[in-house]
Amino acid sequence: MATLPFSANDFHRCAQALIATTRELSARGWTPATSSNFSLRLDDRHAVITVSGRDKGRLTEADFMVVDWRGRAVASEHRPSAETLLHTRLYERFEDVGCVLHTHSHAQTVASRLFAEAGSVRLAGYELLKAFPGQDSHDTAVELPVLPNSQDMPALADQVDRMLDDHSLPGYLIDGHGLYAWGADLDAARRHLEAFDFLLAAELDLRRLRASV
Amino acid sequence: MATLPFSANDFHRCAQALIATTRELSARGWTPATSSNFSLRLDDRHAVITVSGRDKGRLTEADFMVVDWRGRAVASEHRPSAETLLHTRLYERFEDVGCVLHTHSHAQTVASRLFAEAGSVRLAGYELLKAFPGQDSHDTAVELPVLPNSQDMPALADQVDRMLDDHSLPGYLIDGHGLYAWGADLDAARRHLEAFDFLLAAELDLRRLRASV
Amino acid sequence: MATLPFSANDFHRCAQALIATTRELSARGWTPATSSNFSLRLDDRHAVITVSGRDKGRLTEADFMVVDWRGRAVASEHRPSAETLLHTRLYERFEDVGCVLHTHSHAQTVASRLFAEAGSVRLAGYELLKAFPGQDSHDTAVELPVLPNSQDMPALADQVDRMLDDHSLPGYLIDGHGLYAWGADLDAARRHLEAFDFLLAAELDLRRLRASV
Amino acid sequence: MATLPFSANDFHRCAQALIATTRELSARGWTPATSSNFSLRLDDRHAVITVSGRDKGRLTEADFMVVDWRGRAVASEHRPSAETLLHTRLYERFEDVGCVLHTHSHAQTVASRLFAEAGSVRLAGYELLKAFPGQDSHDTAVELPVLPNSQDMPALADQVDRMLDDHSLPGYLIDGHGLYAWGADLDAARRHLEAFDFLLAAELDLRRLRASV
Repeated sequence: MATLPFSANDFHRCAQALIATTRELSARGWTPATSSNFSLRLDDRHAVITVSGRDKGRLTEADFMVVDWRGRAVASEHRPSAETLLHTRLYERFEDVGCVLHTHSHAQTVASRLFAEAGSVRLAGYELLKAFPGQDSHDTAVELPVLPNSQDMPALADQVDRMLDDHSLPGYLIDGHGLYAWGADLDAARRHLEAFDFLLAAELDLRRLRASV
Repeated sequence: MATLPFSANDFHRCAQALIATTRELSARGWTPATSSNFSLRLDDRHAVITVSGRDKGRLTEADFMVVDWRGRAVASEHRPSAETLLHTRLYERFEDVGCVLHTHSHAQTVASRLFAEAGSVRLAGYELLKAFPGQDSHDTAVELPVLPNSQDMPALADQVDRMLDDHSLPGYLIDGHGLYAWGADLDAARRHLEAFDFLLAAELDLRRLRASV
Repeated sequence: MATLPFSANDFHRCAQALIATTRELSARGWTPATSSNFSLRLDDRHAVITVSGRDKGRLTEADFMVVDWRGRAVASEHRPSAETLLHTRLYERFEDVGCVLHTHSHAQTVASRLFAEAGSVRLAGYELLKAFPGQDSHDTAVELPVLPNSQDMPALADQVDRMLDDHSLPGYLIDGHGLYAWGADLDAARRHLEAFDFLLAAELDLRRLRASV
Repeated sequence: MATLPFSANDFHRCAQALIATTRELSARGWTPATSSNFSLRLDDRHAVITVSGRDKGRLTEADFMVVDWRGRAVASEHRPSAETLLHTRLYERFEDVGCVLHTHSHAQTVASRLFAEAGSVRLAGYELLKAFPGQDSHDTAVELPVLPNSQDMPALADQVDRMLDDHSLPGYLIDGHGLYAWGADLDAARRHLEAFDFLLAAELDLRRLRASV
């Protein structure tokens, strides 16, 4: 029996933590039609990530696998989520990123379409902006980037890399595709994800309402 | 005791699978007021389908029955769902259809009314289009047909048949009546159903928001 | 110990049936802030109804009481719901009414405000219209009455009585106050309630969307 | 072992009551990204309040602490919620306030942004206005104040104090920040909170719909 190049215990712990979170996010309707993918840093060379195409409301440990920073399967015959490279590049670039969550909520998808041409969504004046690192007041504005979608993952990953040279928010949208959010650990990534989703839904609704004056 | 012309074991398995799925769809509000109906292919001549008029949030095995391709009850005194023929024609025509799901969600109903005159809803630019067979990119457009409603089931079934000569999407809307979606098995049909519903809700919201610029 | 003028067993059965239903309606947000009230016909002179001011998501048998057709408490020190007369008049007038449900959902409340001046909401072209007695096609139109609100219950009950001379739908709205729906039994009343709510929400959304063309 | 300056039994009782309520409010999406805070009067000098930054959907007794009327931690190393002073000033000023609930729902946040410039939201003609103390008819109007947000808590608390000289509603909004609601006990505060949220959502939707005539 070959020795695994990672800790089986850590894999188990990561998978269990992701199962609990993905079930809750799925119950909100944020992972329609087996979309979305989720990962946790396993060690300094590996991450645990969802296997491609699984129903995110019913994940078990068999629906997770290990990948390296190039997005290649490690000790697994499964195919990782198509967007694996968008996860692993973040782990490789930022040592303090411990978790990456990608969801397809209604508000995320609609906002990504609506603001694709503008290239970003401006979020300003909300107390909840304080959920993001380095923000200690509502009296500020941030720009959530919206990147063009692509089926060429290395090209999309490069595009994300260039965007990250200029942005410090722990998240971005892809047009027609939903949100990526991350953080030092699962709780932080989820807090950022919830804050982005809440703010996008509020911003969309204000746009509807301000037009109706 | 007469021999059943189908496997009782298979009937049991199909009913149990549909019970779990219909409970979840009902909890989302997609089956208001005992509407909606659900079926699974039982063998090459029969399908298991919901009995007419039952509350889809509380189904038990007694709420399912077997029908043949003409939509006639087999070894049952119950009346099958009024739209049974819309299910069985699909099974008869397409050997690879294993499941048909018909729901009445808010987005499905509203979209069917809004786009009835146009005759279809155009869905383009969404990553989730890849949930449909043969779609491998977001950079495409599909047309979801909207058929006029009718209380004459054979006439409505014929209309569906003609539409299917020209369309390959695993679903269609009926005006004021909701969505039909299908797939090779229950998981595939449900994935298509969720994708259609998500995309219709997004499309409706974008229409509201683009008008409000 | 005095003999009760009604069957304690029947009271128990009615209360348990209402508890299950009100918990589900409350979970949907249809009974905000202890609003709403629910009743079942107990016999030819009495109904079981919710005690005033209780949280409808946590009802127990102690939150129900018996009233007569004049809305007076029977063998109880509790105060019945303020709108008790709107329930009992229906039981007195229509022998085939077995259940009355009054809820305050978002769609019901908003529609009641929006269509108060018009005096009714027109519902046409929906398959779900078949949920109402005597409707066997989508190709029809019904008018759901919207009555002015009043804190004078006998006056409001008289107003309902006059409206019922000309209307046959099993429900009506009161401006700013929500929906009353009824049926031969709890299942029928609930089916009507769900159908009205679904149709009102669809109608409101179509109005938003058609304005945005 | 030092004697606590409050009853440990009462602390336990308060924390358990708040845990049950916060779990339900969190499940509705009213406490996104660890926002929101909740308190109960413990005695005539102390309140039990949530520790800062905890996930409100998973609170345990360890996530609560005791503060005095100046908002200082009592017998605890934890940091109380940032807005603690907005809770304790209410307890100090009004002897009959027993509970303060602060949430960040979608409707609360959007309404606070939309009506910030006007300084208040007018709520009129709703039956649910009777949920508020002193209101016995729908045929009335109340003004829910919207205060400017601030990171200077003593200044914000002073602003609230001045507003309360002229207002008698058990609640107010802070721009971009959500709702504060209170009452004699947990049930009353929650009833007020639910009524405000329901009425704000209805008011926002009517604004969308009336613009679409």
